[in-house]
Amino acid sequence: MPLDFHRENRGKIRVDGKVPLETQEDLSLAYTPGVAEAVRAIQDDPSTVYDHTTKGEMCAVVSNGTAVLGLGDVGPEAAIPVMEGKALLIRELGDISAFPVMVDEDDPDELISVVKRLHPMFGFMMLEDIASPGCFRVERELQEELDIPVFHDDQHGAAVAVLAGLHNALALTGRDLEHAEVVVIGAGAAGIATADLLLAADAGDVTLVDRPGIIHGDTPGLNDEQRDIAERTNPGGTEGSLAEALDGADVCIGLATSGIVSQEMVRSMADDPIVFAMANPDPEITYDDAVDAGAAVVGTGRSDYPNQINNSLAFPGIVKGALGCNARGVNTEMKLAAARAIADHVDDPSPDHVVPGSLDRTLADAVAAAVTDAGQETGFCRI
Amino acid sequence: MPLDFHRENRGKIRVDGKVPLETQEDLSLAYTPGVAEAVRAIQDDPSTVYDHTTKGEMCAVVSNGTAVLGLGDVGPEAAIPVMEGKALLIRELGDISAFPVMVDEDDPDELISVVKRLHPMFGFMMLEDIASPGCFRVERELQEELDIPVFHDDQHGAAVAVLAGLHNALALTGRDLEHAEVVVIGAGAAGIATADLLLAADAGDVTLVDRPGIIHGDTPGLNDEQRDIAERTNPGGTEGSLAEALDGADVCIGLATSGIVSQEMVRSMADDPIVFAMANPDPEITYDDAVDAGAAVVGTGRSDYPNQINNSLAFPGIVKGALGCNARGVNTEMKLAAARAIADHVDDPSPDHVVPGSLDRTLADAVAAAVTDAGQETGFCRI
Repeated sequence: MPLDFHRENRGKIRVDGKVPLETQEDLSLAYTPGVAEAVRAIQDDPSTVYDHTTKGEMCAVVSNGTAVLGLGDVGPEAAIPVMEGKALLIRELGDISAFPVMVDEDDPDELISVVKRLHPMFGFMMLEDIASPGCFRVERELQEELDIPVFHDDQHGAAVAVLAGLHNALALTGRDLEHAEVVVIGAGAAGIATADLLLAADAGDVTLVDRPGIIHGDTPGLNDEQRDIAERTNPGGTEGSLAEALDGADVCIGLATSGIVSQEMVRSMADDPIVFAMANPDPEITYDDAVDAGAAVVGTGRSDYPNQINNSLAFPGIVKGALGCNARGVNTEMKLAAARAIADHVDDPSPDHVVPGSLDRTLADAVAAAVTDAGQETGFCRI
Repeated sequence: MPLDFHRENRGKIRVDGKVPLETQEDLSLAYTPGVAEAVRAIQDDPSTVYDHTTKGEMCAVVSNGTAVLGLGDVGPEAAIPVMEGKALLIRELGDISAFPVMVDEDDPDELISVVKRLHPMFGFMMLEDIASPGCFRVERELQEELDIPVFHDDQHGAAVAVLAGLHNALALTGRDLEHAEVVVIGAGAAGIATADLLLAADAGDVTLVDRPGIIHGDTPGLNDEQRDIAERTNPGGTEGSLAEALDGADVCIGLATSGIVSQEMVRSMADDPIVFAMANPDPEITYDDAVDAGAAVVGTGRSDYPNQINNSLAFPGIVKGALGCNARGVNTEMKLAAARAIADHVDDPSPDHVVPGSLDRTLADAVAAAVTDAGQETGFCRI
């Protein structure tokens, strides 16, 4: 059925004109000779590229297809349906144009070299589904090179969505982030970014767990980003298994692998525990099993259960907000503001309603406004 | 006024969804989890990328902005309005999606290195406004690397449009291409490609003139492509000025510089001469001056005179035809077929109507059908 859907429609996006082309006058305005005036205006003042072209409303969705959903390294052709899906969401939820920039290049340095030359047409570069740990360098170096925002959605989109859900879940269970004991499972791109954003939000106790168990600065085999976050979350060098980490914890955030959290582990957590199990397509523990084991609030990445915690809550509004103020980048304050705006957009939070619905068409504007405000307060906007 | 037009609309294109995204079911089809089926199908059989994505309906308009219209090296940002204009024409005239791929890279080899990695999303790569002589290498090497058509419009779009107009102009003046004496002015990308296509169409006498006068294999300062075409058009090594070249000629094709053809030169041509003066925005000789000097058929690149001979006659249909049959490239036979289809699309040719109108919405389908037929006859199509 989804395959028929994709085949019958031959993909999900199209490029349209947004001006008429019916008369000779239309043609002379949009094309030759009229177009020369717009060309000369941009030559004279490069900043007017945002006035005379679509750049300021155009987001790149950049991927090499090396880490797609739960599917792994599928390559840049097979990843197209995912990136067309992201572009569709940005158009439908954010009312912004987005185009999949599919790059046939696995090497992170070569990928940087290609993508950094593609900035002229785009006001925002969203990176998607690029394998870790190369993805960290790709984002960092591109952001250093370019004066438009470069935003690795698998990191920050996920982190913002998690923090948003957590705001409401903590309030519902009478906790605050400063005092809650939070366990993040999975030290990949999303797990690292989530731990990092939680710290920025003044979380008092974040433990990061990967395959070896609780990670710390001396855990063998860590990459640079893992070591950095391990040192910051676990300066004391605590060791232990996933089960030991969850024992007594208030919050479990799964960004790892299907089925690795047991009901017994949930029962060992503090009273009224919060469980976000976001492995795709099958969570670390199912919604039903987590509820059955006593979890007070359960979220997953799935649309067929309550509390779908997906980065699509975050990225349409973040893209829109950054483009709206011609931001140089998306800084931590802008991400924190996005998370708060998503949480506040839920009118009447309840255990089965800690985040807005995935198709809430008023959400992106609220997030965008918050992102723009935070960008302006921190001097990250050019208009 | 054209500047207001560009500013008020903020450019000319947008990316739209072509599937609904209203319900949770829409979301699960277009995005997660349904999208995984399309991903796996393409992994299993890479050729199905044409079925499950927009690739087969998506043309890249690639430019680095180094040779824009009559404006020169304006850079990749200032060139955006032109490429958005091309994308608009391809959508409106060809009903195909096209996206400007603006590359911040002047060096031809680096440009090749970037663009060759961007093939996954596109079924056709149109190159635009890339400086000569690098443009020849860029097209050739990209076509060698990629299994989708790579088509430098400044060369072949212009050549096809000229040949189309010439078919009707020659018939109207009782000539044929085999016996007509044709002078092509300008040994840049368009001039070289036009001379080349005329030879492929069995033109019997083509003379190519550049700043030094008539060029031949030993003319100093020629690049490789100029030397090659000079040897093929002028194996005898004839020398002479532009005025000498035009003396007694049947056809003058200007792809050079404003104002370099005088009325005296036109008067020196054969009876009922044909003059296509296509320098932009001001032709080699104005329409009125050429008619006044006795030209039987006059064409220019301008929309405000009869016979606007512009590559927009050619490229929407060529892109559509090549995509329609999943062509590996655009070969000479396909270009010749396009030119013939454009010429035949004029119902009742007259001296002021040797080519269709620039906004003729039935032209691209006729050109596409001819291009597909020629591609299939020459084994250049995969479906």
